[in-house]
Amino acid sequence: MKVVVTGGAGFIGSSLADELLARGDEVVVIDNFSTGQREFLANATSQSKFRLVEADLLGDSAVLDEAITGSDAVVHLAANADVRFGWDHPSRDIEQNLIATQNVLESCRRVDVRRVIFSSTGSVYGEATVIPTPEDAPFPAQTSLYGATKVAAEGLLSAYAEGAGFSVTVFRLVSVLGLRYSHGHVLDFVAQLRRDPTKLRVLGDGLQRKSYMDVSDCVAALLASLDRTPKFEVFNLGSNEFCTVYDSIGWIAARLGVSPELELTGGDRGWVGDNPFIWLDTAAIRATGWEPKWSIRESVERTVDFLVANPGIVDLLGVES
Amino acid sequence: MKVVVTGGAGFIGSSLADELLARGDEVVVIDNFSTGQREFLANATSQSKFRLVEADLLGDSAVLDEAITGSDAVVHLAANADVRFGWDHPSRDIEQNLIATQNVLESCRRVDVRRVIFSSTGSVYGEATVIPTPEDAPFPAQTSLYGATKVAAEGLLSAYAEGAGFSVTVFRLVSVLGLRYSHGHVLDFVAQLRRDPTKLRVLGDGLQRKSYMDVSDCVAALLASLDRTPKFEVFNLGSNEFCTVYDSIGWIAARLGVSPELELTGGDRGWVGDNPFIWLDTAAIRATGWEPKWSIRESVERTVDFLVANPGIVDLLGVES
Repeated sequence: MKVVVTGGAGFIGSSLADELLARGDEVVVIDNFSTGQREFLANATSQSKFRLVEADLLGDSAVLDEAITGSDAVVHLAANADVRFGWDHPSRDIEQNLIATQNVLESCRRVDVRRVIFSSTGSVYGEATVIPTPEDAPFPAQTSLYGATKVAAEGLLSAYAEGAGFSVTVFRLVSVLGLRYSHGHVLDFVAQLRRDPTKLRVLGDGLQRKSYMDVSDCVAALLASLDRTPKFEVFNLGSNEFCTVYDSIGWIAARLGVSPELELTGGDRGWVGDNPFIWLDTAAIRATGWEPKWSIRESVERTVDFLVANPGIVDLLGVES
Repeated sequence: MKVVVTGGAGFIGSSLADELLARGDEVVVIDNFSTGQREFLANATSQSKFRLVEADLLGDSAVLDEAITGSDAVVHLAANADVRFGWDHPSRDIEQNLIATQNVLESCRRVDVRRVIFSSTGSVYGEATVIPTPEDAPFPAQTSLYGATKVAAEGLLSAYAEGAGFSVTVFRLVSVLGLRYSHGHVLDFVAQLRRDPTKLRVLGDGLQRKSYMDVSDCVAALLASLDRTPKFEVFNLGSNEFCTVYDSIGWIAARLGVSPELELTGGDRGWVGDNPFIWLDTAAIRATGWEPKWSIRESVERTVDFLVANPGIVDLLGVES
C-alpha cells in the first residue's frame, strides 16, 4: 500500500516510515523540518519506494494535494509537541495542531483519500478523574493549549468521519521513548548530566506519576491500524504501567553511571499544565491483539543508550531546561 | 459593571444587552453584522451607557483591545451558528468559532480582562449515550463541524483558565427560541407556511426529539453568571423537557391557524450531523437557583407570535429550506 506520513522526519514518523518500507509499502513523507531531522530519514531516502515532500502543512495546498493523491492512507503525525511552552506563543498550537490538521483533511477530501490515522495525546483528558483513564472518560477540562488543540483536532476528525465519509483512527498517546527520541524529560536529564554529572534539576517534587511507551510499540500499533477501516475509532496507546519521575531518574543515572544530587523545584506539578498522574487504560487497543513489548524501564534505558550514542541530538535539542 | 458582548447584535446578544442596560450596567457590543440585526439594537443605541463597536473578531486586534479594555467581563456569543451547512465551507466554523475565540482570549490577556462567559452548545455531546446528558458525559465523537469547533473553543477556554488565570463559565445551550429569534426550524416552518399554508416540508421523519429554551431564560442564566468568579465551570442550559418535531409542528400550525399536509423527507436524521435525540441534564445550573420560566410549547408560541409580528425577519432570513 501507499502511505503518506506527515511529520515523517520526526521521532515517531521516521520510525514508522522505516517499518513501512521494510514490509514493502510505498511511503511519502511530508515534513517541514521544523523539528524533524534529516538524518532520521537516512535509511528511508536510500530506498526506491520512498519519497520526501519538503513542505509545510500551512503552506501551498496544491503541494499537499499532489503528495496525498493516490495514497491509501494518511498517518498524520505532524504537530507542535511542546506541551510546556504553549503560553509563549498561543497561536502556534492552534496553527500546527489544528489548522494543519484541517488542511490535511481538506486535501484528503479534495483528492478522495479517506483513511486517516491521527496521533492525539493522553493530555486530552486534562487531569483525569478516572485512573487508569479509559477512552470514554468524563468530558474533561483542558489544562494545556496542546491538549486543547489536540481535542479540537479529534473533534474535526470525528466530524469528517460523520459528515465526509472518512475512516478515522485516533491514538491518544502517552509520552514516547526509544530510538530517535528527541524531546522530553529523558533528553533534558541526559543533557543536564552531560554538562554536570553531579547535580540534576527536576521540575516538581519528583513524585509525578507518568506512563510512557517505546516508539517500536507505538509504531506497531500504527502499522496494525492500517489494516482496519473503521468509521471512527479512538484508542489509548501506552504501556500497562506507570512510574514516578524519581524511578525514571534512578534508571537514567544508573545507566549513565552517575549519582547526581537532585534539586527539586517542588510542587506536584512541574510546570503550568503539568499533570501529576497520567495513566491510560489500554484495554481497548490490547483487545485488538496489540501488546507493548517493552517495559518503561527498558524503554528509558534504550533511550539513554540512544542519546549516549548520539551526542549530537543532546547538543542540538537538549538545551531548554 | 461594564460588560462586553461579542455578537451583541444577534438574537441572544441583543437581548442580553437590553437586560444589562435595564439593570444599569455599561454595555459594549462588538458585532460585524454578518448575521446580527441593527434593529435588534434600536433600544440599546438610544441609551447613554451603550456603545457599539462594529468590528470583526478576525480583524484588527487593536480595535478589539480598545473595546475590551476596562471591562469587568466579556460575554463571547459571536459564532457561526449554522450547524447544517458546515460542509459547504469547512473553514468558516474554524475561523468564526475557534480563531475568533482565541482572538478574544488573547485580547483579554493583553488588556488584563480575565472573566469570560462563553456560549457553547449541546452539540458538543455528539450523539450522546447518556440522556438526559450531564456535563461530565463520556468523551464524545463529534458529528458536526459546528460541535467540533465549539469543543475546540471550550478546550481553549479551559486552558486559559488553567494557564493564564482566567475565570471562565461555559454554557452548553440547547436551541434557543423567543423574541428576536432569527435562525432555526421555527423560522423555517413559518417561512414555508407563509409561502404556502397547505403544505410543510420536514427534514427527517418528524420523530427527532429536541430540547429548546426561551431566550429570556437563557439571558437570565448569563446575567446570573456575571456574579460568579469560578476558575472554570461548565453548565448545560436548557428546559427540563424535550419535544418531538411533530409536537412543534402542531403548536406552530395551531398558532398560525393552518393545517398543512406534511412532506417528510424521512430518516431519523434531518441532515448530516442532525441528532435524533437532544436532551440535556440541567441539574447543575438549577442548583445555582436558575429555573426556566417558559415551557417549550410557550416558547414556540412566543416565537411564532414574534415572527408573525415581524414578517421582515421571515422574508429576510427564512429562505434556506
